[in-house]
Amino acid sequence: MPVNVLFAATEERWHDYETPLRTALEEAGVTATLATDLPPEEVDYIVYAPNSDVQDFTPFTRCKAVLNLWAGVENIVGNPTLTQPLARMVDPSLTQGMVEWVTGHVLRHHLDIDFFLARQNGKWERYIPPIASERPVTILGMGELGTACGQALAALGFPVTGWSRSPKQIEGVTCLHGTEGLTRALARAQILVLLLPKTPETESTLDAAALDAMPEGAVVINPGRGPLIDDDALLAALDRGHIRHATLDVFREEPLPADHPYWAHPQVTVTPHIASETRPDTASRVIAENIRRGEEGEPFLHLVDRDQGY
Amino acid sequence: MPVNVLFAATEERWHDYETPLRTALEEAGVTATLATDLPPEEVDYIVYAPNSDVQDFTPFTRCKAVLNLWAGVENIVGNPTLTQPLARMVDPSLTQGMVEWVTGHVLRHHLDIDFFLARQNGKWERYIPPIASERPVTILGMGELGTACGQALAALGFPVTGWSRSPKQIEGVTCLHGTEGLTRALARAQILVLLLPKTPETESTLDAAALDAMPEGAVVINPGRGPLIDDDALLAALDRGHIRHATLDVFREEPLPADHPYWAHPQVTVTPHIASETRPDTASRVIAENIRRGEEGEPFLHLVDRDQGY
Repeated sequence: MPVNVLFAATEERWHDYETPLRTALEEAGVTATLATDLPPEEVDYIVYAPNSDVQDFTPFTRCKAVLNLWAGVENIVGNPTLTQPLARMVDPSLTQGMVEWVTGHVLRHHLDIDFFLARQNGKWERYIPPIASERPVTILGMGELGTACGQALAALGFPVTGWSRSPKQIEGVTCLHGTEGLTRALARAQILVLLLPKTPETESTLDAAALDAMPEGAVVINPGRGPLIDDDALLAALDRGHIRHATLDVFREEPLPADHPYWAHPQVTVTPHIASETRPDTASRVIAENIRRGEEGEPFLHLVDRDQGY
Repeated sequence: MPVNVLFAATEERWHDYETPLRTALEEAGVTATLATDLPPEEVDYIVYAPNSDVQDFTPFTRCKAVLNLWAGVENIVGNPTLTQPLARMVDPSLTQGMVEWVTGHVLRHHLDIDFFLARQNGKWERYIPPIASERPVTILGMGELGTACGQALAALGFPVTGWSRSPKQIEGVTCLHGTEGLTRALARAQILVLLLPKTPETESTLDAAALDAMPEGAVVINPGRGPLIDDDALLAALDRGHIRHATLDVFREEPLPADHPYWAHPQVTVTPHIASETRPDTASRVIAENIRRGEEGEPFLHLVDRDQGY
């Protein structure tokens, strides 16, 4: 009997995912009926985007799992009607894209590339930036993405400190945790990368006090979640020169409103939420593998811990 | 009896090197007289910068080796009075700095960072660059520097092709060689990095024909040597849009003259020969090690092959 898979996301996503998902399911050996409309009581799995029309999970009485298309689950994890297991997307391309974006912007700031781009003026002004071993980088959030970025930066010679809520051990990275660890991690961050999940606890992690704890002239890079930053506090720290630059890919409101001060600030670079994007081919394989696991009674991959919120 | 070491370079270099060299010699267990002026017939080793006053090596009758302060030896290797062994500088910091600069600028072009820097205009225009596995990079010149850069880029997921005159095998890098190999290496280069030495054979390696062999919209990055490029051919390829961008750190004439068309070209980034710089601490250790080897009858490191010119 075929497995019934409901694709609950925007039409645009269906356009991108239909073919890769059918291919991936077939490759995983799963015989499935994949559709954007199925009677709720007959649905076995929901491939889900939090901005879909499905917001009440009560009628999906036999649904074995909700498989999120994205890494972020903050807009679904608190839904009280969701009693089924919820899996995050851990797409290898998503991790790869994040590593490239983070490494690229860390090197951009490390090598002061903006300085040289702005000096195409016929003046030969030599200035040699320090090497990576003299440029400590701190990453807040050592999940899948933070760990991959930390290891890539460590391989390039940066001294990397990784902070997470609970203790971790990651090769090549100095791991700190807890409140006292956070202050120490911030104090050494010449470049700070925010990769924490969005939870009530991580809201405004980078507030005025955290910014004060950072060294003079440090750089902030946020490819994580917009609400990790207290925007007013960051703008104040930039204005007084305590923070040298902020490169921000995510915002509390997206698209970032055209009149937001970040756009006009000379020490801020806005990128339009491009640091990491799920790619249909690789993401479809992750979803198909989880459906195969569900059908064969194996544990699901990347389940969300409802208490932690990620 | 102390070893007599002549420091033959500019005063500025002496200022930078005196202390690190004395420390490194002491640490290597070499008792040395280090000075900027010694009777030529008493000199055992010359620490050398090609722009120093010493151009005639004939009077240095007992000199065991000339130890170059830089990687490039093109301004000394053809000197007919130089009969002593000549060693290039292979400074681990120099390699490290080059890897950082090359990786930073490859990622800058790969991620199209300039595009986003130029769009701080309040408009949320999303555009997701491909991931590294879809962006072939070719490096011409697989010596110490090319190999290190190739391996760093391969570790980030780029498909890397390395071309050299003679066949090589380098893990993670597709190695090509010879004339036919060059055309193939150029044909796949979405990003091309020039790290060949400057020799009569490498002069204008990137000429009109080589540029034509590259794919439409490719990027050229030159941290190697200025004369590797036929500048008129590159400017023509940029003007007709065949080459999308050139980031150039080295030039036939340095400082690059203020009226050179590279400065004003919108698709060219000039950096003032900063990709890689010898650092006195680490370079001094390499020199001291070579003097120790000379004194103990061990083979010198990094000897220049006079026939090949590097």
